[in-house]
Amino acid sequence: MAKRLKTAVIGTGFMGRVHLEMLRRVENVDVVAVVGRQLASAQKMAAGYGAEALDDYGKLLEDSTLDAVHICTPNATHYSIVNDAFRAGKHVLCEKPLTVSVVEARELVDLAQKTGLRNCLCNNLRYYPMVQQMRRMIEAGEIGEVLIAQGTYSQDWMLYPTDWNWRVDANVSGPSRAMADIGSHWFDMIEHLTGLRVQSLCADLQIFHPTRKRPKRSVETFTGKLPSAEDVEDTPVTTEDFGAVIFRLGDRARGSMTASQVSAGRKNGFTFEIFGSKSGVSWNQERPDELWIGHRNDPNQIIVKDPSLLKDGARSYADLPGGHSEGYDDTFKQVFRRFYRSVLEPGSAAEYPQFSDGLRQMTILQAELDSYRTRGWVNVEKYIAQPVLEGHSELRGRR
Amino acid sequence: MAKRLKTAVIGTGFMGRVHLEMLRRVENVDVVAVVGRQLASAQKMAAGYGAEALDDYGKLLEDSTLDAVHICTPNATHYSIVNDAFRAGKHVLCEKPLTVSVVEARELVDLAQKTGLRNCLCNNLRYYPMVQQMRRMIEAGEIGEVLIAQGTYSQDWMLYPTDWNWRVDANVSGPSRAMADIGSHWFDMIEHLTGLRVQSLCADLQIFHPTRKRPKRSVETFTGKLPSAEDVEDTPVTTEDFGAVIFRLGDRARGSMTASQVSAGRKNGFTFEIFGSKSGVSWNQERPDELWIGHRNDPNQIIVKDPSLLKDGARSYADLPGGHSEGYDDTFKQVFRRFYRSVLEPGSAAEYPQFSDGLRQMTILQAELDSYRTRGWVNVEKYIAQPVLEGHSELRGRR
Amino acid sequence: MAKRLKTAVIGTGFMGRVHLEMLRRVENVDVVAVVGRQLASAQKMAAGYGAEALDDYGKLLEDSTLDAVHICTPNATHYSIVNDAFRAGKHVLCEKPLTVSVVEARELVDLAQKTGLRNCLCNNLRYYPMVQQMRRMIEAGEIGEVLIAQGTYSQDWMLYPTDWNWRVDANVSGPSRAMADIGSHWFDMIEHLTGLRVQSLCADLQIFHPTRKRPKRSVETFTGKLPSAEDVEDTPVTTEDFGAVIFRLGDRARGSMTASQVSAGRKNGFTFEIFGSKSGVSWNQERPDELWIGHRNDPNQIIVKDPSLLKDGARSYADLPGGHSEGYDDTFKQVFRRFYRSVLEPGSAAEYPQFSDGLRQMTILQAELDSYRTRGWVNVEKYIAQPVLEGHSELRGRR
Amino acid sequence: MAKRLKTAVIGTGFMGRVHLEMLRRVENVDVVAVVGRQLASAQKMAAGYGAEALDDYGKLLEDSTLDAVHICTPNATHYSIVNDAFRAGKHVLCEKPLTVSVVEARELVDLAQKTGLRNCLCNNLRYYPMVQQMRRMIEAGEIGEVLIAQGTYSQDWMLYPTDWNWRVDANVSGPSRAMADIGSHWFDMIEHLTGLRVQSLCADLQIFHPTRKRPKRSVETFTGKLPSAEDVEDTPVTTEDFGAVIFRLGDRARGSMTASQVSAGRKNGFTFEIFGSKSGVSWNQERPDELWIGHRNDPNQIIVKDPSLLKDGARSYADLPGGHSEGYDDTFKQVFRRFYRSVLEPGSAAEYPQFSDGLRQMTILQAELDSYRTRGWVNVEKYIAQPVLEGHSELRGRR
Repeated sequence: MAKRLKTAVIGTGFMGRVHLEMLRRVENVDVVAVVGRQLASAQKMAAGYGAEALDDYGKLLEDSTLDAVHICTPNATHYSIVNDAFRAGKHVLCEKPLTVSVVEARELVDLAQKTGLRNCLCNNLRYYPMVQQMRRMIEAGEIGEVLIAQGTYSQDWMLYPTDWNWRVDANVSGPSRAMADIGSHWFDMIEHLTGLRVQSLCADLQIFHPTRKRPKRSVETFTGKLPSAEDVEDTPVTTEDFGAVIFRLGDRARGSMTASQVSAGRKNGFTFEIFGSKSGVSWNQERPDELWIGHRNDPNQIIVKDPSLLKDGARSYADLPGGHSEGYDDTFKQVFRRFYRSVLEPGSAAEYPQFSDGLRQMTILQAELDSYRTRGWVNVEKYIAQPVLEGHSELRGRR
Repeated sequence: MAKRLKTAVIGTGFMGRVHLEMLRRVENVDVVAVVGRQLASAQKMAAGYGAEALDDYGKLLEDSTLDAVHICTPNATHYSIVNDAFRAGKHVLCEKPLTVSVVEARELVDLAQKTGLRNCLCNNLRYYPMVQQMRRMIEAGEIGEVLIAQGTYSQDWMLYPTDWNWRVDANVSGPSRAMADIGSHWFDMIEHLTGLRVQSLCADLQIFHPTRKRPKRSVETFTGKLPSAEDVEDTPVTTEDFGAVIFRLGDRARGSMTASQVSAGRKNGFTFEIFGSKSGVSWNQERPDELWIGHRNDPNQIIVKDPSLLKDGARSYADLPGGHSEGYDDTFKQVFRRFYRSVLEPGSAAEYPQFSDGLRQMTILQAELDSYRTRGWVNVEKYIAQPVLEGHSELRGRR
Repeated sequence: MAKRLKTAVIGTGFMGRVHLEMLRRVENVDVVAVVGRQLASAQKMAAGYGAEALDDYGKLLEDSTLDAVHICTPNATHYSIVNDAFRAGKHVLCEKPLTVSVVEARELVDLAQKTGLRNCLCNNLRYYPMVQQMRRMIEAGEIGEVLIAQGTYSQDWMLYPTDWNWRVDANVSGPSRAMADIGSHWFDMIEHLTGLRVQSLCADLQIFHPTRKRPKRSVETFTGKLPSAEDVEDTPVTTEDFGAVIFRLGDRARGSMTASQVSAGRKNGFTFEIFGSKSGVSWNQERPDELWIGHRNDPNQIIVKDPSLLKDGARSYADLPGGHSEGYDDTFKQVFRRFYRSVLEPGSAAEYPQFSDGLRQMTILQAELDSYRTRGWVNVEKYIAQPVLEGHSELRGRR
Repeated sequence: MAKRLKTAVIGTGFMGRVHLEMLRRVENVDVVAVVGRQLASAQKMAAGYGAEALDDYGKLLEDSTLDAVHICTPNATHYSIVNDAFRAGKHVLCEKPLTVSVVEARELVDLAQKTGLRNCLCNNLRYYPMVQQMRRMIEAGEIGEVLIAQGTYSQDWMLYPTDWNWRVDANVSGPSRAMADIGSHWFDMIEHLTGLRVQSLCADLQIFHPTRKRPKRSVETFTGKLPSAEDVEDTPVTTEDFGAVIFRLGDRARGSMTASQVSAGRKNGFTFEIFGSKSGVSWNQERPDELWIGHRNDPNQIIVKDPSLLKDGARSYADLPGGHSEGYDDTFKQVFRRFYRSVLEPGSAAEYPQFSDGLRQMTILQAELDSYRTRGWVNVEKYIAQPVLEGHSELRGRR
């Protein structure tokens, strides 16, 4: 019988709850504890699944039978929790962004390398079945040489000056908001899919609401849309609502992207198109089971997700038959399954994003912030002071 | 602390696996066993989730600590397993269709009534968030008087004469295929949404492949698309590949539908549009998070699923924020959660489809088969020899 | 230099205006006159294009230099105008439906045959480029044996009881409304595309508004949506708002369609899907430049109109490059061009719908009305008392 | 009776043919001549419409009864033909881009101003009905303050190195290709719709095929996709296949766009989205009759073109009823109609793009070329050495 693994979720917000529920779907893994700053929140989340509730992750890490932890806390806390978890010998799956600075990210990558522990950054969006289909198509040369990558990640939950969430607070969330929260998904995806690296970029950012109304109690991510009467206070905002970037990708390809939290009507509008010398692909997270393939001399194609139509490397990401939709939650299951399989099989390849990918994302983010400040093109490479350790990431592994 | 319930899954095919994995997401429920005809299949399914594997559901029912069972076996076996489970005092959640005849279905409804046990028919498709949004809109009179209901349930997995599955065999699956398997979802949906009953109908059926190539080993539902070399034998087919129905709904409304398993390119194409005296709604299962609302004197509307845009009664079916897709699997979670809540709270309303709905579906199916045989309109009421017991079903409750 | 032809438009409503403007695009044709019941309407239409305005088509037909006429008057008047035009030796292009009865239609077909004059029924919708692409694909066997044809023609301009137009008045428009006006386009299209004939059918009709508010002045087709205060009177309605039909097509194929003028949000929603033993096609008039092609074992395809992607027989219907949309008006140009080419080239094939197609449409319509009255299936053939003269129609020519 | 105007078309390529055919739809205008470099081309185009064929526009301009000319020749020739036409006292409608340099464009604007003759630049794409609907919505404040404008104009007709057309030759077409041909439409549209001006921008360009195979005979625009065997010669290319721009619009808004002639599967993919502080709008030229309106706290909306749903100022651009598609050709009719109305009514407003808009487009284009060369942000204003004369353009008039 397979060994069963013990894990725990730290963080009781939107992401913490998703991790917990999706961990329940993974075979041979038991969630033994949930940790929250407030014990009541942890108890509420843990109760139904027979897990223990804690308000101190330190105690959790003392449990020598625990194999791994999921870190779903605000961005600025990742660095120290990951540090502590690694030092306690736990495998770590951390929500993105990995840290709030390149320096911190590099330290965590080094630490992961030294400890030899499994480390996963939760860029779950890579694992929609149709995304993996694109990846395998590009890898197989089906679109030819990559020429163009463009798109946007647009949401509207921060449209009004009355919208507030901990992510607006730079002390908790770091110096970037739209680019860090969702723009980082966009770049991670493009580099993952094309196997190319962003070489240089020119970015523009905008804070449309330099002041927002902050409620005096905390507001869960995405839930602020439902109105509620409460005390608010005018609070200056230092992180961007919107960013636009043009960039050079690999030696010849060109790109363009925007990220926005103030685009009315776009709920989770992560879209991109990648055009190559033979054909193009396009995808939209709001219709995740569809993949558009563009051709010049043949009709365009639309794949509605169907395992029998997917390439070998993509098929294992589709658990349901043709036309039976797989959603956002299901991408977490795909990541978690592969993460725990790698924990069980030391030496096996890491088929998921790793901390080195998180460092890469922080590097691009830093380049964006600097490009905006200096109002000019910047070379991404110059932010990579020390070469990232090779051999780790699924992304790099593909180059 | 909430009482924990014990349940088990009978059946190890495509549906059995979905039930098991989705049960894991439901709070306060433990899956203690999986039953399969072949022990090896049950073991394979059960292992990762710490459940026991059995090859005899009789033994399972002897366990007095077991609260409920999920029946995910071929259609023709439902009747006897449900019977046994009720007699053993277990609450029952059964896959659709409930039985292979009206008579059997009526007996099970009566038995459910007598025992007072919870009974659920797994018409999960009702529980996509956008479907519930439509339901609440219609209930609130937002589309006015219902005038027209039309659409199709089209798939392509049976297109070729080489496609085979146990569902083709009338002895295992009953006298109808396309109409029973997917047409029944269509009618259930329309009656659920409109609160109106199909009064009369005229149906046409067609078997495009009167002979199919049957492989000598069994083939899982939907998996036959991937080619495999194997021994086959010509086998006559007596169940329809396609059906078309026109019908009268309530006193004034009119309708039209088709069901097909041979429509190339449609993977799980369950679509319908309902037009009322004020506005219309339309939905397509292949893009489940979108709802079209048609207007005459205003722009049409598209809701991309977002809890903040849903009506009160629909919001609890959307567990994720705007634009974070919820898929096929997630509908099961919604059903199971409500089923077990009702088990825990005797006397509470059954917010899910019940066996009386299954009887209703069998009744319409019987009317279709007769209409086809007699080549004419038939009155559905005449198939309801004995009035269905009132007060049970969510559907009926809305009338 | 090519001979120039003289033509005239009879009728000054919505269709008359479209014919006039589209005739201006046809090479070697001069519109010399416009005829209206009210001289002022004719003058208004004729003025800008240098045509003469008349209020009596009799005078027009006396002009021996006139080659052809376009008949765009209310349905019930077609019969006598066509008769007069043929007897005056003019080629005739008539709006659909050809007449208000099968008998009249048959007479006109016979007369056309006897006179040897060119006759065209304006089923312009066949001539969208993507429709012709489907036709050529089916002809070439690319979808295999036709199995299923289904769809709808749905509009909303008659949704409210306050909506009125001459088409509501059976004395002017004939005994059928939704089925005659738009349902006839649907069946014409399916027979045109598949080359198969509807053999038998079962139809249901519904008049949702048995009484409508009739304005005391006349209302142009489609324009009644913009509100206007005026005197109205309650008027009984005897023609259907909605119809639903199931049918058998050729020897084995099956079909289903609805036609509606009361479907909120559908403006000109003519859609259909045709599934064959190899693949399927689907099209929607509201996005006329797109064609969906469904496959079982390959990705589905979408052609965005591009001459370089069309089959040889379809390419001449696309006058603009890829992605440059061609609309409703442009289909008339395609018909007119081919009609006048045939006038100039006696003996050439008629590459457009002819009166025999109009008779066919009246026959199916009569079958629908009878099926509804008798509440049962009817055999279409029995309405063809006298075989339609062969060799005429583009549709028949393809069989 | 209205005065009839005489006009002529200079140029016999794709655009010349479209102008001629669309002029035929305009009331009170007669096309008296067609001018081509080769008389045979002119004869072929002119014959069917009873116009004279010429091979020298000089002769044409000597005709004192001629009111106006349409210039549809290659870009580099516009300057001198417009000059000659103005000096001959003709009103001028010129295809875009107006010239191949800012200096030339400024001269033509000045000359137009001095002569007082009507001048129109054929930015026809502004005149799709749904585009005008957006314009009126934005003007009325319905989307609030404009925050973001983004999109692309993507085609694929230049994807392969074997694709060739006169537009590739910088001597004929000017120093820019993708940005001049289609990028200019994009910026014209955004400034037209928002009433805001691009203040600064940073552009990147790319020539993916620095060498192309040039056929020894000429190839009509867009027609090169159909293969033909012929002699070709390797020819260096100096104009871009692709461009990407980020920009600042007005005081606070931000934007991003790309233009591409090498994006496989995009035939004429002109799309944009404009997000404001209240709501957003989005449109795609490949589905021109649809307009998406995005909302934060209400369902999104889709208008399928229907005059009854359009705002007053937009309704006159929709000549057909709801759902009856209007296409690319129809936008020319809208421009031409308004142009000739203004010729007939001296002193009336110019409800169409004028040469000052052409100068504006050349200015932005120059800024893009310089930004690319200097690899940095540039201020568009610095290219406006001499303020454009006010009061002319429809665009400017709206500020």
